[in-house]
Amino acid sequence: MSNPPYPEINSKRLWRRHLDMAKIGGTPGGGVHRLALSDEDIEAHLLLAEWAGVHGFSTDLDSIGNMFIRRAGSDPSLPPVASGSHTDTQPLGGRFDGITGVLAAFEALETIHEAGIETRHALETIVWNNEEGSRFIPACMGSAVYAGGEEVSDMLAREDRNGVTMGSCVGALKKALPQAGSRELGAPIASFIETHIEQGIELETNGNTIGAVTGMQGYRRFEVHVIGEDAHSGTTPRARRKDAFAAASDMTRALRELLWDEEDEIRYTVGRFEVLPGGISVVPGRVNFYIDLRYHDAGKLDALGDRIPEICRAHAGPCEVEINEFIRQAPMAFPESMIAGVEQAAARHGFPHQRIYSYAGHDARHAARLCPAGMIFIPCWRGISHNESERAEPDDIAAAAQIVTDMLIDQAV
Amino acid sequence: MSNPPYPEINSKRLWRRHLDMAKIGGTPGGGVHRLALSDEDIEAHLLLAEWAGVHGFSTDLDSIGNMFIRRAGSDPSLPPVASGSHTDTQPLGGRFDGITGVLAAFEALETIHEAGIETRHALETIVWNNEEGSRFIPACMGSAVYAGGEEVSDMLAREDRNGVTMGSCVGALKKALPQAGSRELGAPIASFIETHIEQGIELETNGNTIGAVTGMQGYRRFEVHVIGEDAHSGTTPRARRKDAFAAASDMTRALRELLWDEEDEIRYTVGRFEVLPGGISVVPGRVNFYIDLRYHDAGKLDALGDRIPEICRAHAGPCEVEINEFIRQAPMAFPESMIAGVEQAAARHGFPHQRIYSYAGHDARHAARLCPAGMIFIPCWRGISHNESERAEPDDIAAAAQIVTDMLIDQAV
Repeated sequence: MSNPPYPEINSKRLWRRHLDMAKIGGTPGGGVHRLALSDEDIEAHLLLAEWAGVHGFSTDLDSIGNMFIRRAGSDPSLPPVASGSHTDTQPLGGRFDGITGVLAAFEALETIHEAGIETRHALETIVWNNEEGSRFIPACMGSAVYAGGEEVSDMLAREDRNGVTMGSCVGALKKALPQAGSRELGAPIASFIETHIEQGIELETNGNTIGAVTGMQGYRRFEVHVIGEDAHSGTTPRARRKDAFAAASDMTRALRELLWDEEDEIRYTVGRFEVLPGGISVVPGRVNFYIDLRYHDAGKLDALGDRIPEICRAHAGPCEVEINEFIRQAPMAFPESMIAGVEQAAARHGFPHQRIYSYAGHDARHAARLCPAGMIFIPCWRGISHNESERAEPDDIAAAAQIVTDMLIDQAV
Repeated sequence: MSNPPYPEINSKRLWRRHLDMAKIGGTPGGGVHRLALSDEDIEAHLLLAEWAGVHGFSTDLDSIGNMFIRRAGSDPSLPPVASGSHTDTQPLGGRFDGITGVLAAFEALETIHEAGIETRHALETIVWNNEEGSRFIPACMGSAVYAGGEEVSDMLAREDRNGVTMGSCVGALKKALPQAGSRELGAPIASFIETHIEQGIELETNGNTIGAVTGMQGYRRFEVHVIGEDAHSGTTPRARRKDAFAAASDMTRALRELLWDEEDEIRYTVGRFEVLPGGISVVPGRVNFYIDLRYHDAGKLDALGDRIPEICRAHAGPCEVEINEFIRQAPMAFPESMIAGVEQAAARHGFPHQRIYSYAGHDARHAARLCPAGMIFIPCWRGISHNESERAEPDDIAAAAQIVTDMLIDQAV
């Protein structure tokens, strides 16, 4: 499968590791429910650390709960060459989102280690904490903090729905891994390559195994609070209503018109929309909703997003409206060297490949602030993700791990 | 205040009873939180039964949890002349909705009793169970079952959000009132008059104390389930989305257009609208929403309501839609004799009064299936109801109790 000096990965071991990991938080529906730093997610970290210990790889944790499995290099003054992704999942998520990138990275470390290849740089498998953002907001928390995009103290204070803080969860992780060393936030990394399922249908449609990711669309997220007045649905005429539902739905529809494009490239989603108090016979006095807007062009994303507050206000009717933008990330491009590195490795092994754009957000966005970063996409059955029926093929997973192996060797030797 | 043979009610006692009742489930915000057959609502029943015991009035319960406080008449073969309303409230509701009608009825019984007036018919204060329908669906459950509009076995099986059945709550009420007798569902009633706050601004606007209620608008309620497909908000283009939120909001907007009338008499409300799974970055695959439609004309209510399923289907886009009508009540009119009875009593005491239509639903709708029924409205500050700041004036409450007293005497002697 591979040419010297690139050792061949062990695809059977890699698949077995996938099956082992899928048991941790495995659901009756065949998916995985492993929220960030839940008991299950900590168990996944422990299993990885246990595998690492077999080879004498060290394990470090930083203050936001990112984990670094390290195979030492011959020159301790050089920063590590790294790969990885995340172990957490969405609620009732799949068996491949995140963990594929972690296991590909770990397989690369094992393969290189077993081949006895000495590297000048250390090699690392990184598990970024809380990529999904479903238990703790925001998503990509660990990589963002590491790269300086979020304040660690602010993030450690974030609470889940039960009032449990990220700080206490990181404490639990450290307690579960007493042997782990300590890693400074922002400590230099030489390069970072992340494998991930595509979560789209482009590779599947084109029959390609590997996508060399060129960049990631930007996104802006807004929370909108519409404040009307609760009223009796039988006695209150339209003229005296301050119906927050009617106003909020007018806003979302006007935004749908604004954000409609012939090319079908603008991604506009209202995924959370809460109507209060929620009585069938009560004109609702309050709606809280959230806008997720994504696009690949920075200028147009800026221009469109900037119009959201004015559109909401124009459709508020008799209600008050408060709008707050709580996340904003510009579109980004990976360096050509990393994109080409993926392509070259894919060509070397005869994997059908293409360049591809990422419409989802990933930790590599933040890693790219620190070092040359890139991503490898593999196909994902029918594009279905964040879903128990998410599926990726063992051969595609193995192909990605092989490319990671090649790239780590190229950059670390 | 009153002419012979109508004894004057004790307005101070009546107001004190209001203050006592307002303590049961009283909220820091000055309202009352007393959900149907909660511990608080049962406590309110016990207090009323205790007051009844002082005069030797009997207390009966039926199998759906309605309570009947009875002052015996001289001819036991005659059905009772009754008045009453309900003790339950909306969550964080007010101090007057429901209880005003119960206490006006009880004050009438006490006043007539203390005046030593013998009546051929027994006199009753009825507490209908679960009028609000906020803990158990549907609203007006007790009166509907009593009058044969709902099946008792079906209603006793209804569960609140914690899975507690109405049957177990009725059991708790009976256990708390071991001395209570048993009343047959549907046992004859000679007449029924219900006092209630208007929950609108017509009396206040016109400066009237008393509204002689002419009838009640009809209503139809639909539940709509929109089934799409959960998808990733970043990777899924519009063309591949089955966005249940977009479809459901299109439906509600099209219905808003259909149900718009220049006269502002059609009441169309979407008060409950649930978007699932509710992740900010997930295209929602499911929306459940509820339509409350009310109108005074039966033919038009039929025609408009019948169009709802077709409008929903026409706007489903790529989603599936299921529509179920779960409540349907035609508009109704109270008999002229009862309307005139209220007017005559109001005129007798010099209370400014008018005829008024009810835009809310009340237990008297169901009582009217069994006997001549009517309603007395009193003003409600700014029309605010189902709200902790709900307010009615002691003088207006006393005026209503006086009219109930007069009418019970007229019909029972």
